[in-house]
Amino acid sequence: MTKRKPVMLVLGAGAGIGGHVGGYHAVLCRRSDEEGLARLVAGIRDSGGEATGMLLNAVEEGAIEDLVFRVERDIGPVEVALFNLGAQIGNRALGDTPLKTFELGWRMATFGLFRLAQALLPQMGRRGSGTLLVTSATAAVRGNSGQHSHAAAMGGRRMLCQTLNAEFAPKGIHVAHILIDGPVEAPDTLGKLLGPERFAALKAAKSEGKDELILPGELAETYWHIAHQHRSAWSHEVDIRPFKDKPWWNS
Amino acid sequence: MTKRKPVMLVLGAGAGIGGHVGGYHAVLCRRSDEEGLARLVAGIRDSGGEATGMLLNAVEEGAIEDLVFRVERDIGPVEVALFNLGAQIGNRALGDTPLKTFELGWRMATFGLFRLAQALLPQMGRRGSGTLLVTSATAAVRGNSGQHSHAAAMGGRRMLCQTLNAEFAPKGIHVAHILIDGPVEAPDTLGKLLGPERFAALKAAKSEGKDELILPGELAETYWHIAHQHRSAWSHEVDIRPFKDKPWWNS
Amino acid sequence: MTKRKPVMLVLGAGAGIGGHVGGYHAVLCRRSDEEGLARLVAGIRDSGGEATGMLLNAVEEGAIEDLVFRVERDIGPVEVALFNLGAQIGNRALGDTPLKTFELGWRMATFGLFRLAQALLPQMGRRGSGTLLVTSATAAVRGNSGQHSHAAAMGGRRMLCQTLNAEFAPKGIHVAHILIDGPVEAPDTLGKLLGPERFAALKAAKSEGKDELILPGELAETYWHIAHQHRSAWSHEVDIRPFKDKPWWNS
Amino acid sequence: MTKRKPVMLVLGAGAGIGGHVGGYHAVLCRRSDEEGLARLVAGIRDSGGEATGMLLNAVEEGAIEDLVFRVERDIGPVEVALFNLGAQIGNRALGDTPLKTFELGWRMATFGLFRLAQALLPQMGRRGSGTLLVTSATAAVRGNSGQHSHAAAMGGRRMLCQTLNAEFAPKGIHVAHILIDGPVEAPDTLGKLLGPERFAALKAAKSEGKDELILPGELAETYWHIAHQHRSAWSHEVDIRPFKDKPWWNS
Repeated sequence: MTKRKPVMLVLGAGAGIGGHVGGYHAVLCRRSDEEGLARLVAGIRDSGGEATGMLLNAVEEGAIEDLVFRVERDIGPVEVALFNLGAQIGNRALGDTPLKTFELGWRMATFGLFRLAQALLPQMGRRGSGTLLVTSATAAVRGNSGQHSHAAAMGGRRMLCQTLNAEFAPKGIHVAHILIDGPVEAPDTLGKLLGPERFAALKAAKSEGKDELILPGELAETYWHIAHQHRSAWSHEVDIRPFKDKPWWNS
Repeated sequence: MTKRKPVMLVLGAGAGIGGHVGGYHAVLCRRSDEEGLARLVAGIRDSGGEATGMLLNAVEEGAIEDLVFRVERDIGPVEVALFNLGAQIGNRALGDTPLKTFELGWRMATFGLFRLAQALLPQMGRRGSGTLLVTSATAAVRGNSGQHSHAAAMGGRRMLCQTLNAEFAPKGIHVAHILIDGPVEAPDTLGKLLGPERFAALKAAKSEGKDELILPGELAETYWHIAHQHRSAWSHEVDIRPFKDKPWWNS
Repeated sequence: MTKRKPVMLVLGAGAGIGGHVGGYHAVLCRRSDEEGLARLVAGIRDSGGEATGMLLNAVEEGAIEDLVFRVERDIGPVEVALFNLGAQIGNRALGDTPLKTFELGWRMATFGLFRLAQALLPQMGRRGSGTLLVTSATAAVRGNSGQHSHAAAMGGRRMLCQTLNAEFAPKGIHVAHILIDGPVEAPDTLGKLLGPERFAALKAAKSEGKDELILPGELAETYWHIAHQHRSAWSHEVDIRPFKDKPWWNS
Repeated sequence: MTKRKPVMLVLGAGAGIGGHVGGYHAVLCRRSDEEGLARLVAGIRDSGGEATGMLLNAVEEGAIEDLVFRVERDIGPVEVALFNLGAQIGNRALGDTPLKTFELGWRMATFGLFRLAQALLPQMGRRGSGTLLVTSATAAVRGNSGQHSHAAAMGGRRMLCQTLNAEFAPKGIHVAHILIDGPVEAPDTLGKLLGPERFAALKAAKSEGKDELILPGELAETYWHIAHQHRSAWSHEVDIRPFKDKPWWNS
C-alpha cells in the first residue's frame, strides 16, 4: 500500500505553479487544452514530483463536487486548494452584457468557489487543517466601467472569502483572498487573450529584464508563503502588483 | 388626456416610503401581501398623491423587464427607481446553505439589480436624467460568519452599483448605494421576521422615544435628499445607522 | 434680554454656506481676507439672518479653544460645527516636502479637528445633542504621489472622525465625515489657487450650465441635510462629486 | 578592509526578529532597555550573524536622520528598513487625551515614518532598490472608541505608506504596510503592558500549543517573505492575525 501524499488541488491551473508543488501531489484542473495540461503534469513529474491532470468544466452541475470526492478518495486528502477560476470577459457596456454572460461570470467566479468550499471545507474542518487560496482581481474592490459581470462576480467572491474565513479560520482552515492588481505574464490567460504575436511583443517590451508583468513563478512564491504561514500569524487579504504598476487606489 | 407625472418605481416597497412621493406617481411593487400593498397605495392616494401597487416576483424570468416596460408605457417615465430587494436569510453555516439558497440570494440581490438596470438605465440615458437608489446592507462591505449567501450577493451588488455608476453617471444618471448599517423598524421585514409580539416588544424597548431603530420615514428623508441632489454634487455611497448603533467597522 | 439662537460655527468659511444658515446664528471663521469675510456676513444679515465673522489662525496655540469658549459664552450654544480647514499644498515630491510643511498639514487638518472636538464635544455631550460636520478629501482614503503631507493629515482626520463618532454618537452627537471627491467651484480656495483669470476660464468651461465643478451652494444642501438627519438614521460617511467626475476608486 | 554586508535597520526592535537577519548586518534600535537590546544583539552574533544595537529616541529632533546617516556611512547601505514604532497608549476618552499625548502619537507613528523615509528613501532610490516595511495596526483602518491618538496617528501612517509607495515603487523601492490585527506575544510590548505575571498567564492560556497570540518569529517569516518578493510581484498591504482572532471587519 502506498503512502498518500497530501494533495494540492488547483482549479484553473496555468504555468508557474509547477515549481511550487514539492511535497504535494498536485492535482491540476482546467477547462480545456488537454495537451497543455499534460505538459504541466509531465514537467512536475520530470522534476521528481507527483501530479495528475484533469479537465474540468467547473460550471457543470456536480463537477466540482465530484472532483473533490474523487481526489480525496483516490489520490489523497486535499491540504491546499487554489481557486484560480476567473470571470474576466473584457470591457462590455451594460447593453452589451447579455443576462447569460452576467450569470456565467457569477457561476464561475462566485458560485464555483461556494461549491468548492462546500465540498471541501467540511473535510478540512474534520482534519483541523487546510488552506484555501483564492485568486482575486482588482474588480473585487472597485467597479470600473464595462466590468458589470466581472466586478459583480468578484465583489461577491471577496465577501464569500470573508464569510468562509469567519466560519472556518477558528477551525484551523486558512482562507486567503489574494488580489492580483496587475497583468500576469501567463500564456494560458493573457497569452490567449492577446494571441501569440502580441503576447510575445508584450513580453519583450515589459517583462524580460523589466519585470513590469507579474511573473507566474514569482506570484507562486507568495501563494506558497501564505499556504505555509503558521496559524498564529495568518494573512487573509494580500495584494500583488508589479513595481511599476499603479495600485488600484491611485490615480 | 392627463398629463403624466414622473414615476418613482419602488421594488420592495414597505411602509415609510409613503410620505415621500410628492410630485411622483409612485409605483409600489412587492412579492406578496396584496392587502398590505393596497393599504400603502390607499394611504398615498388619501393624502392626494398618485400611486399604483403591483405584485412582483422579481426572480421570475422577464418579470422586472416587463414591469419597467409597462410602467414606462402606461404610467410614465421612471425618474427615480428604488431597489429594495433583499437577500437576508438569517445566519446559516456553510453546511446549512443549500446551493439553491445561495443562488436565490444572488438572483434577488445581484441579478435582480442587473436586470432592472438593463431594462431601465438605457431609457434614463436617452432622457439624460434619472436616479437609481439601491438599498444595501452591512454584508456588502464585510462578510460575517453565517452570511455566505447574503454577503456574496450584497458584495456583488455593491460592485455592480459602482460599474453602473461608472457607465451612467457621466450620462446624467445618478446611482447611489445606500448602506443600511442597523435595524429598520419596518413591519414588512423585521416585523415579519420577529412576529407581531416580539416586534411590538422591540419597538417599545428600543424605538419609541429612544430612536434606536431606524425609522422608515426618517430613512426615506435621506433617500429623498439623494434623489434630489444637484448633479454637480452627487453622493454615491452613504451609510445610515441609529445613533446608538456601532458602525460596522467598530468593535 | 435677547433670546439666543443656536450657533452654526464654521471653521474655514467660504462662499456657498451663506444660504444655509436659516435658524442659526452663523459664526464664520477664516484665516485671512477680512473683507471677504465681512461680505459673507453682510450677505447673511441682508437676507435677514444673524452672522458674525472672526479671523482665526487655527494653528495658533489656544486659538480654537478660545473661539469655542467665547462663542458659547457670548453668542450661544454651538449646535452645528463645520470643520472645513484643509491642508492641500499641491503635489510635492518627498524631497520637496520640508518637515515643517508636513507638520503644518497635520496641525491644520488633524490636530485642529482634535482641538475643536476637545473644546466643543464635551459641551455638546452635556446638552445631549449637536453636530460636527467634517469636510474631507479624497486624500483621506488614498495616498497619491506627491500628497505625503495632505494624505497623512487627511488619513489621520478620517480615523479621528471615526473615534469621535464612536465615543460621542451614543451621547447624541452626530459626527460626519464628508468626502469631497472632486473640485469645488469656490473662489476662496480653487479660485485663489488658480488666480482670477484661470478660475473664470475654468468656470466658463466646466461649470456654468455644465455642472462639472461642485457648486458650493449645492454642496451645502447635503451638509444641511446631514445636519438635520434624525438620530435614528444618521450618516457618518458620505461622498460627493460632480456627475462627470470619476470616483476615486475608478481608473 | 572588510566587505560590508547590506544592513537591515530595525526601528523598534523586539524579540523575534533575531532569527531572520541572515545575510544582513542587523542594526537594532529601540528607545530603552539597553540590556535587553544587548541580549538581542548577542543572540544574533552567537548564531554567527552580524548585529549592532543602538538606543534611539525617535521623537528627538534629528535623531532618525543622524541614525540613517551614521549607519550608511559606518556600517553599510540599508537594504531593508523595518519601522516598528507604535503609538498605542491604551484606551482614553477624548477628555483624558491631553494635546501633548495626541501630538506624541503623531510624532512617533506618522512623523517618525516621514522622517525615516526622507532620510532613507532617496538613498535607496539612488541605488535603485530597497525595502521599507511598516508595521501597522488595526487602528489604521478603523477608529474605535478611546483610540483618538492611536487611530489618528495610524490612519495618517497608512496614507503615508501609500504616498511613499506611489512615489518610490516605480523607482524600485518596495514599501509595504503590514497590518497587525491581533495581539503579538512580545515581551517588549505586550509583556511590559501586562507585567511579567499576567503576561506569563496569558501565554500559558492562549499561546503555548494554542497559537492564539501572534508569535514574533512567525510574524517575522512574513516580513522576511515580503522583503524578498520579486519586484514583478510586490505586496503593499498585508494583514496578519492569529487563526482564532476575528478579523477587524467582522462582528
